[in-house]
Amino acid sequence: MDVKLINPFIEATLHVLSSLAFTKAKAGQPFLKKDSIASGDVSGIVGLSGEARGTISVSFSEQSILAIVGNMFGEPVKEINDEVKDAVGEILNIVSGQARQKLEAMGRTLKGAIPTVITGKNHAIFHITKHPIIAIPFETDNGRFTIEVCIEDRPSA
Amino acid sequence: MDVKLINPFIEATLHVLSSLAFTKAKAGQPFLKKDSIASGDVSGIVGLSGEARGTISVSFSEQSILAIVGNMFGEPVKEINDEVKDAVGEILNIVSGQARQKLEAMGRTLKGAIPTVITGKNHAIFHITKHPIIAIPFETDNGRFTIEVCIEDRPSA
Repeated sequence: MDVKLINPFIEATLHVLSSLAFTKAKAGQPFLKKDSIASGDVSGIVGLSGEARGTISVSFSEQSILAIVGNMFGEPVKEINDEVKDAVGEILNIVSGQARQKLEAMGRTLKGAIPTVITGKNHAIFHITKHPIIAIPFETDNGRFTIEVCIEDRPSA
Repeated sequence: MDVKLINPFIEATLHVLSSLAFTKAKAGQPFLKKDSIASGDVSGIVGLSGEARGTISVSFSEQSILAIVGNMFGEPVKEINDEVKDAVGEILNIVSGQARQKLEAMGRTLKGAIPTVITGKNHAIFHITKHPIIAIPFETDNGRFTIEVCIEDRPSA
């Protein structure tokens, strides 16, 4: 997978958190996943298809997402409730939409599927692909989260 | 969502469990999900896009998937390990592939994204859509599992 395809996801994530949730996140060095596992307390996943198969996931610790959603609503959020799930879906939709727009400008057209949000203390996520998966760690003042992206270099079936 | 689109998923599920895992499953009455929540101990999700956005998920209890994978390998499986995750990915891939072939014959062409498998005791899954989600409960001799399907009646963005 071309690492140039990763920047649109980083930019879209920083932008959506800053504009929607007044949260300054710092992107760490992207790295190649070997074990295909992300873990977190709330995750969002959206499948991509079109000229290639792909997937994007974002996995938050409880602490980080409660702070982000608290910022979005301007009041403390104590638990992972429906508003938190909806917010994760919205963040993911915007990241996926903005990143895909930029990819299209780079000549890669991908369509997004219906996003899914998963809750459950310390669940784990495995992308079922033999292609490389790039993980991007982010830090906020209230904890970390991780985005994973895989875009296979072949057309979707 | 047209309920006729559901039958290919039921047929593909019964076929793959019977042929791969020598497991006779019985499909219950499909029903319309109101709360968009599936829960289980191991789930697989695959996004669909193309002429419509969609998603398919399958959520197994630990008991049911250990029995199914035990049948696939011909020996008892005691815990949700890598082989179980791979088996869920494989089951989902085949269900998605066979069902999409039948949908294509019915004039609906959808492409599949990279599938994802989620593990974590009693995690919950939320499909982020305003369109109806159809759930299909299945029973086996060793417990239940559920498939959820949503195909939106509009082109994917």
